[in-house]
Amino acid sequence: MSNSPYEKYLENIRYQLQNGQRRGALSKGQYNNFDGGGGANISGISSAVKLFDLKKDEALFESLDRLTAIAGKKGKYHERPGAHPDFIHIKENNTVEYHNITSMFIDIKNSTGLFRKYEPLTVANITMTILRAAIHTCWYFDGYIQRFNGDGLMIYFGNKNTTISASVNNAINAASFFTYFVKNDLKNLFYEQGVENIYTRIGIDTGDDEAVLWHLAGVGDCSEITTCSLHTSLASKLQGNAVSNGIMVGDNVKSNSTFSSDLYTIKWNEKEKKEDRYIFQIPEENFNYTQWQFHWEKHLKNHPLVRMDDNGNLYFAPAVGAPSIIPTKNVDFLKDQVKGYRPYMK
Amino acid sequence: MSNSPYEKYLENIRYQLQNGQRRGALSKGQYNNFDGGGGANISGISSAVKLFDLKKDEALFESLDRLTAIAGKKGKYHERPGAHPDFIHIKENNTVEYHNITSMFIDIKNSTGLFRKYEPLTVANITMTILRAAIHTCWYFDGYIQRFNGDGLMIYFGNKNTTISASVNNAINAASFFTYFVKNDLKNLFYEQGVENIYTRIGIDTGDDEAVLWHLAGVGDCSEITTCSLHTSLASKLQGNAVSNGIMVGDNVKSNSTFSSDLYTIKWNEKEKKEDRYIFQIPEENFNYTQWQFHWEKHLKNHPLVRMDDNGNLYFAPAVGAPSIIPTKNVDFLKDQVKGYRPYMK
Repeated sequence: MSNSPYEKYLENIRYQLQNGQRRGALSKGQYNNFDGGGGANISGISSAVKLFDLKKDEALFESLDRLTAIAGKKGKYHERPGAHPDFIHIKENNTVEYHNITSMFIDIKNSTGLFRKYEPLTVANITMTILRAAIHTCWYFDGYIQRFNGDGLMIYFGNKNTTISASVNNAINAASFFTYFVKNDLKNLFYEQGVENIYTRIGIDTGDDEAVLWHLAGVGDCSEITTCSLHTSLASKLQGNAVSNGIMVGDNVKSNSTFSSDLYTIKWNEKEKKEDRYIFQIPEENFNYTQWQFHWEKHLKNHPLVRMDDNGNLYFAPAVGAPSIIPTKNVDFLKDQVKGYRPYMK
Repeated sequence: MSNSPYEKYLENIRYQLQNGQRRGALSKGQYNNFDGGGGANISGISSAVKLFDLKKDEALFESLDRLTAIAGKKGKYHERPGAHPDFIHIKENNTVEYHNITSMFIDIKNSTGLFRKYEPLTVANITMTILRAAIHTCWYFDGYIQRFNGDGLMIYFGNKNTTISASVNNAINAASFFTYFVKNDLKNLFYEQGVENIYTRIGIDTGDDEAVLWHLAGVGDCSEITTCSLHTSLASKLQGNAVSNGIMVGDNVKSNSTFSSDLYTIKWNEKEKKEDRYIFQIPEENFNYTQWQFHWEKHLKNHPLVRMDDNGNLYFAPAVGAPSIIPTKNVDFLKDQVKGYRPYMK
């Protein structure tokens, strides 16, 4: 049994992997062997099957409370997608507004492989628990779930009371913890249960007040409050360029974050034996936008409240006493670090 | 000026390409040169800018009315995403249900290139008009918009009163018309205005009552009514495997559709000099699921109500008289054809 902050999520998934409906169960008429007897009927309803239970979900969310010490403030539970609370007036007044935002795309890859072993009910239970780990982690870091993309999520970090710097730091922290969960905890569990590995790819970019237009996408009721920006589009492209369990970020993330520049490197293209430096260029303007690989494992290891063992397992340092801060010449940087790392007191 | 059914959409996009905000306009303080004087302020609101106008949008939708003759019944305007009307009880009762559905993923590629020339307000206007063309086309074919994916859409075809056969035919027709719009009309317009070409990729698959689980994804308010199915997942994978302006479909689509099997071919992998036949396999079960390229141009050309000239421009035949139906041995197939092609009478 690991000491992972995600242990409760792992317990749920382990239960499903061991006791879930095996592929073919439905065609054999075995609708009722799921989760203690209740089953879904073909083209019918069963009140006994609940994929979502608010109390259980809140308990899951609370089980990640140790992230509060990293985030610096208590995470918020429960929000509606596609309706960022700071930009609701865009829908009400049918208008547009320019305001900075950090966009993050999380994709969960290879979950289709689960259908080789399990019926949809079990696949849904597993993938939803993974998605909840992502959602809850983002909530601890002040993220706003903008959209479900099937096996992925789009999340905004930022609002009218947050600096761009704090937003990108939050996005990076959320991405790092969730990637840790998938790459380490989930991998170990899937290996233990003989299931094909899944992995994640994350892209993050940020645009300032001039670069991001908030508007209503879609038509009428069939719509969401969203952003149009080169940097929202690039966040999605960055995700596509990330390696398995990798985090790719745009140059604006690197320049606005207060984390060490040692954590970023240029991606090496092994096939073409060259650096993949730029993700977007406008030759006429000599505009060349760099993409960076963010080294989340190094980042987590560097964190004063986090410990990682040789197998990549993560532990939280006891949240007592003052964390050790390395002195720096940059006072603003120091302040931000102290703020970010202050242990949370109830 | 073309005779395209999408002419009104093209007019909107042409206006934006010619009169939209050029890249760099904002940094020069030119916030007010959009759409007749109204402008969005940096971090402020302007009531003069409306990206969405219900009356204009309904007029756009109505301009596609000739699709009614193809669909066989009048399209429906205006629905909320993520809450399919036939499965609302899943959210209300927090339960699950098995029911067949056809899933379609549309992606619009290379729209990031628009940021090389235009400010976000203009990019949003152009991409939203393209998205509306997709949404409206799907509405004519009884499609339900499940989700916005930034530069794409996920659409369900099917409900409790439709056969799987009718659902896949509708999905194929919607995909064919929208791909025509992007490949022909939009390409010509972008070329004429000196803008980088954009293209689309579409994936479709369908699962029967045993293969598709409807459930609530996400947590609490932050949720959508969605499906968990190998075939929903494969529809997304099929989109990824489609060529530019191509439509890839799963074997279930081919076997359930009433359209000619001549319209489907196996994709050729030029790099590896072999056929890309299977998209999903379970060797232990000898389960091999085939993916097909659907030849939408041939399909549209074959349609008795559609004419296409040598340049690929599409025209509608006058909706008078009985359409010519080729006799067939399969009476169900014939019935479906007659039903599908019956000219719509107001």
